[in-house]
Amino acid sequence: MNLPPLYAVVLAGGSGTRFWPASRRLRPKQLLPIGPSAPLSLIRGVVDRLGGLVPPERVLVATGSHLLEATRRELPELPPAAFLAEPRARNTAPCIGWAAFVVARREPDAVLCVLPSDQHATDAEAFRAALAVAATQAAAGRITTIGVVPTRPETGFGYLRKGAALAAGVHEVGAFVEKPDAERARQYVASGDYLWNAGMFIFRARDMVAAIRRHLPAMARLLDAVDEAAALGEKAEQQAVARFFEETESVSIDYGVMEKESGLALVVGDFGWSDLGSWEAAWELAARDALGNAAPSGSVLVDSRRNLVADLRSSAAGRVIALVGVEDLVVVETDDALLVMRRDQSQAVREVVDALAARGDAQLL
Amino acid sequence: MNLPPLYAVVLAGGSGTRFWPASRRLRPKQLLPIGPSAPLSLIRGVVDRLGGLVPPERVLVATGSHLLEATRRELPELPPAAFLAEPRARNTAPCIGWAAFVVARREPDAVLCVLPSDQHATDAEAFRAALAVAATQAAAGRITTIGVVPTRPETGFGYLRKGAALAAGVHEVGAFVEKPDAERARQYVASGDYLWNAGMFIFRARDMVAAIRRHLPAMARLLDAVDEAAALGEKAEQQAVARFFEETESVSIDYGVMEKESGLALVVGDFGWSDLGSWEAAWELAARDALGNAAPSGSVLVDSRRNLVADLRSSAAGRVIALVGVEDLVVVETDDALLVMRRDQSQAVREVVDALAARGDAQLL
Repeated sequence: MNLPPLYAVVLAGGSGTRFWPASRRLRPKQLLPIGPSAPLSLIRGVVDRLGGLVPPERVLVATGSHLLEATRRELPELPPAAFLAEPRARNTAPCIGWAAFVVARREPDAVLCVLPSDQHATDAEAFRAALAVAATQAAAGRITTIGVVPTRPETGFGYLRKGAALAAGVHEVGAFVEKPDAERARQYVASGDYLWNAGMFIFRARDMVAAIRRHLPAMARLLDAVDEAAALGEKAEQQAVARFFEETESVSIDYGVMEKESGLALVVGDFGWSDLGSWEAAWELAARDALGNAAPSGSVLVDSRRNLVADLRSSAAGRVIALVGVEDLVVVETDDALLVMRRDQSQAVREVVDALAARGDAQLL
Repeated sequence: MNLPPLYAVVLAGGSGTRFWPASRRLRPKQLLPIGPSAPLSLIRGVVDRLGGLVPPERVLVATGSHLLEATRRELPELPPAAFLAEPRARNTAPCIGWAAFVVARREPDAVLCVLPSDQHATDAEAFRAALAVAATQAAAGRITTIGVVPTRPETGFGYLRKGAALAAGVHEVGAFVEKPDAERARQYVASGDYLWNAGMFIFRARDMVAAIRRHLPAMARLLDAVDEAAALGEKAEQQAVARFFEETESVSIDYGVMEKESGLALVVGDFGWSDLGSWEAAWELAARDALGNAAPSGSVLVDSRRNLVADLRSSAAGRVIALVGVEDLVVVETDDALLVMRRDQSQAVREVVDALAARGDAQLL
């Protein structure tokens, strides 16, 4: 069977504070050179990982208006029309719906691969293979998701329960499962029946349009208005898009569509996936020396172990970072901040951001 | 009894690496704003602590030629003639001898107070009182030293054993004692008979000149040549000084003179003395919050305890330092280096300096 045209819809609207001081309101995680893609940004890694599977002219990037310029700089090969600028954050359903309607206008049978922009996969080939399997399912009319084989009883992710087998490595989705507690997470992982929900969805444009009409009819009407306005010209389209984001509900694609659909396919993915959810995760994925340190070359490490050092200043020339007798730290420098943190306290970086917000240090957020 | 004129001889030739990255070859410890004198430098604190006891025109500062400009900037009120520039480091006897000969030319009965430039005393009044007692002894013809009441069994200092009592708080020097091992240091402190040798010496100019003639005759001959050249003009004097530092032996005043003299006086000093020998000592003396942190105002400290944070960059504006979940660290920033160190490993900072030297990073030394 020949596959229909494949589109990628890269979701790059995320903000987030877990990588402060590297991440900021105008420089969210996906734009940072963290993890194994460094010195490339995460979003650059996501697009590069598509390889030949999706050509640049069929890559769409949904991002916040305030991030548009910075995101374009990361992906200079993409044409201006590739960027869907969200005037305000409305969770994932509106931007995925928008992308589906836009593609459906021209190629209703095209298959869209929705990919979060802030994840990493170490095995790009396996990633593309899973995507191709998912695209085959999608081309046959099934809204499909890729579930990631869990490597630990993570309580920070939702899970996908496998349903009936459809093909090799493909199941029906048995259920979307909320983030579990620790005990339940252990059971999920031990059973082998659960995969991590990594937010990757693959579907024909026409199928998503139909699903939105079924489950989110008000949103569908606003998107129809965008379609109609698009026929009148760019300015009319922009106004309709603004109205869409003004009036549509804020809802995730999981809750708004996926959990209400039946007959979804689930492709088992095992390609060294990580959501790089914290500095701790960045350390885990980083290239490390024999003592477990990940630090810029030129750093001087004396009797120090298992540290992550990141120098993200705009000009790092002629400067040295020295560690003496320290273990399990995260040390991050930017032009305007220095963070020194116990690695296993990475979640608490949020408290720094809260403290800065409370005292009105807006430029540091 | 009226005291003769009092001179201060501030020894500011020290280099040292224990405060890297703050201390450098051209910015040794005494020029740094560390310890309780901050934001003033240690040497500024030493001169200020003299209060009215020694007027600026009788303060001499012995320093290395390469440190002359930086040292003058710290003490702008002193006339150019106050600075004795040592063309090369020759330990303490040559520069103290030089100062004694210089003063003896004009006022052989004047009393010189030799004070290291890189120490701190929290109780300036008690410090001046001890100095006045010592000056009284010196004016009577005894070479005198001030011993510091020990507060811990320190193995890094030499000790002074008390001899026969001469007056209230004044003894003969029983002996100069080398740096002890830990067990011996405990005995010294427990006995109450030992004081720390803090390198402070007080004597009449004529008495030191005579002592140098007795114990270091070759050095005395070179200093006589400096005296003779001085009568011929500044240029001749400079040449004689250069020859003096070229040819004289490198020896400490303790070993070269003090340990060979008899009848020395020892004044008991108790004025919150510290030699600020490491970042650890700087933390001990620093103003700390309830959790034991000493950090620049504006820092964000989350669940962190007993840390020393020093931001010594030339422009620290608009920058924040955040600590999360860390304890007992030293974090020091300069324009060209960042040090993160376990506080109790402060001595190991030397290994960083050695590593930088080994790879030829001369600008960081």
